[in-house]
Amino acid sequence: MDNLELIKSLARQSPTKIVLLVIDGLGGLPDPQTGKTELETASTPNLDHLVAGGICGMSDPVAPGITPGSAPGHLAIFGYDPLRFKIGRGVLEAVGIDFDLHPADIAARGNFGTIDEAGLVTDRRAGRISTDKSTELCRLLNGITIENTTVYVQPVKEHRFIAVFRGAGLAPDISDSDPQQLGVTPHTIKGLKPGSQKMANIANQFITHAKTILANHHPANMVLLRGFSSHPNFPTMNEIYQLKPAAIASYPMYRGLAKLVGMAVLKTGNIFEEEIATLKHNYHAYDFFFLHAKQTDAAGEDGDFNRKVANLEQIDNALKALIDINPDVIVVTGDHSTPAVLKGHSWHPVPVLLYSRWCRPDKATTFSESACLSGGLGRLPATRIMPLAMANALKLEKFGA
Amino acid sequence: MDNLELIKSLARQSPTKIVLLVIDGLGGLPDPQTGKTELETASTPNLDHLVAGGICGMSDPVAPGITPGSAPGHLAIFGYDPLRFKIGRGVLEAVGIDFDLHPADIAARGNFGTIDEAGLVTDRRAGRISTDKSTELCRLLNGITIENTTVYVQPVKEHRFIAVFRGAGLAPDISDSDPQQLGVTPHTIKGLKPGSQKMANIANQFITHAKTILANHHPANMVLLRGFSSHPNFPTMNEIYQLKPAAIASYPMYRGLAKLVGMAVLKTGNIFEEEIATLKHNYHAYDFFFLHAKQTDAAGEDGDFNRKVANLEQIDNALKALIDINPDVIVVTGDHSTPAVLKGHSWHPVPVLLYSRWCRPDKATTFSESACLSGGLGRLPATRIMPLAMANALKLEKFGA
Repeated sequence: MDNLELIKSLARQSPTKIVLLVIDGLGGLPDPQTGKTELETASTPNLDHLVAGGICGMSDPVAPGITPGSAPGHLAIFGYDPLRFKIGRGVLEAVGIDFDLHPADIAARGNFGTIDEAGLVTDRRAGRISTDKSTELCRLLNGITIENTTVYVQPVKEHRFIAVFRGAGLAPDISDSDPQQLGVTPHTIKGLKPGSQKMANIANQFITHAKTILANHHPANMVLLRGFSSHPNFPTMNEIYQLKPAAIASYPMYRGLAKLVGMAVLKTGNIFEEEIATLKHNYHAYDFFFLHAKQTDAAGEDGDFNRKVANLEQIDNALKALIDINPDVIVVTGDHSTPAVLKGHSWHPVPVLLYSRWCRPDKATTFSESACLSGGLGRLPATRIMPLAMANALKLEKFGA
Repeated sequence: MDNLELIKSLARQSPTKIVLLVIDGLGGLPDPQTGKTELETASTPNLDHLVAGGICGMSDPVAPGITPGSAPGHLAIFGYDPLRFKIGRGVLEAVGIDFDLHPADIAARGNFGTIDEAGLVTDRRAGRISTDKSTELCRLLNGITIENTTVYVQPVKEHRFIAVFRGAGLAPDISDSDPQQLGVTPHTIKGLKPGSQKMANIANQFITHAKTILANHHPANMVLLRGFSSHPNFPTMNEIYQLKPAAIASYPMYRGLAKLVGMAVLKTGNIFEEEIATLKHNYHAYDFFFLHAKQTDAAGEDGDFNRKVANLEQIDNALKALIDINPDVIVVTGDHSTPAVLKGHSWHPVPVLLYSRWCRPDKATTFSESACLSGGLGRLPATRIMPLAMANALKLEKFGA
């Protein structure tokens, strides 16, 4: 019996409420000047209050040494082992723009590219056309219908877009048209399994249509498709945890991920204070809230140590309002570390704090990497966070008699 | 997806260099007089320097409570789960004397034994004949050819030897001739799977030849073979990690293990200082170096606490030259603990330190069991050491988007 099956067999509904705050890229590394990480530098009285009354530890989103992308980092926190629950390339792109993917849809990652008169690919990114231009071209291609299948084409950024095929009897097991090299023609897409030839034919017809429509839009005179994949149809958080979960996130990627695990997505504003306000407004209607704070990761990626510190302080300040709501369980963690000195995601384990009246307290009194290192939760895989939150919310039955 | 597949999918080449020093039998137990372990007693300023600038922890080579042999202990550190990657008895003996095993070879563990006139085994160890005598007898048997298969016979120690069968179409799935009891005749070897009867016939013919040749060498007038096994053909470290790895070890067993995972084996001297000199001389040509220090284990096995302390200090002293080379990542650990008070390998977890500029520092400032217990790496399976080394060398791509 795996972790999810175990939890599913023990989960029960109850009136208690869980709030999970994911501070994106939370973990850091010391500033060489001060020897303190971003979190250790920031003044965070509200987080410290939660730590002092709760328990903390260090979590590995995937495994020690593995640097997670945002999708596996979040899936792990939601309790889904990211080595088992995988999201195809096309679907991930669709999720990234919060496209409303249906269970039977097939999504592909697309590039606008350039072909010459002989049909050979000369640029796989069409000179990195602007997002505006890409948006205009996607509008031309969006809604084409082939054999009762509608193709939804939506811009992502610059030359990148998604193509989502919605129809009956479509299978994702088809090859790419993107040859991933120059000087050759795009590949004809082929069915890779019995039953997937229909999808291959539709995709090839779409490409032919698109080529005609784009003929006068050099350098973006061709589409290159890859990573065809279907909605992963993960078990929902309601099925596993008996929760009624809601996501409050200002960035589309995180709303998309939340939808994949069956969360309701609530409308909110662009700043974290607004997310807390949204939580307060909807507090009666759900028993699990996933809040996402993005700015910390962006600051880390930019290598801006001080901005990450300021973002942490801003989040902390907004938490006063959350503490006043007094949820039964508050979990604060990150989907991965993003140390400003590394300017990117990293493999370093991520601080986690859990606050509830049923925590066995530890000695930690501040929320920091060094305090979490000797915290009462120890070092744990991120997939263990949800079972602990559920337990502290008294939402798990005893295992065995 | 298992750990190795995951790492393989993420590994990339880069100019950074990793040095892995295995101090054999590193972990210890306190001297009852002082309350300090061997490592805590030794003065180790260079190891302490690495700990202060790095991160440390405790590793379990196989699992808590399991005492590892040298082979599983090393395989785990190289990243190969020793419960999955197994080495047959015959192959392990061949590896132990650094025999140059070919991929299709079949190796057996051999004993010289004694049979009486009725052919019944009266001594399975031929009175533990001397290694000199065994070497002489092996010379008589070495190179016999049967059905185009050559049998290489090499002494190990006292009555022990290896017989390696090199030919075409040989299978390891055959029974033993060694009856493992007295008063019976040696067993006729049988094929245990379709296709292994040829190998059984050749082995039986070899035994008949050997019996004739040894007839006048009582008490060593018979050979007893067991543990027929083939080269495990593990994926190489190059295949998994994209590394160009080299082993520097003065003891044959460790060179043999290194070869099994595809390391180049460099010529070196018998003392640890020479291993560091070999590293320095070959530093440009490889990006991963496995150094092995043996004396600590031997001292522990002898129950000589003070000699183990002195050996640790000698290793530490030589490390100054390694630190001056300034590799990107230095890992120091052991393949198991060998506490002098236990006079043997033990199940106790093993100190591990990792030094790189990207470590998140912990509070440890000395290399000792007690410091490692609260180190930033926490307690981890030894198979996680390589992924961490790779991550710190910036040789792993991000997992997922």
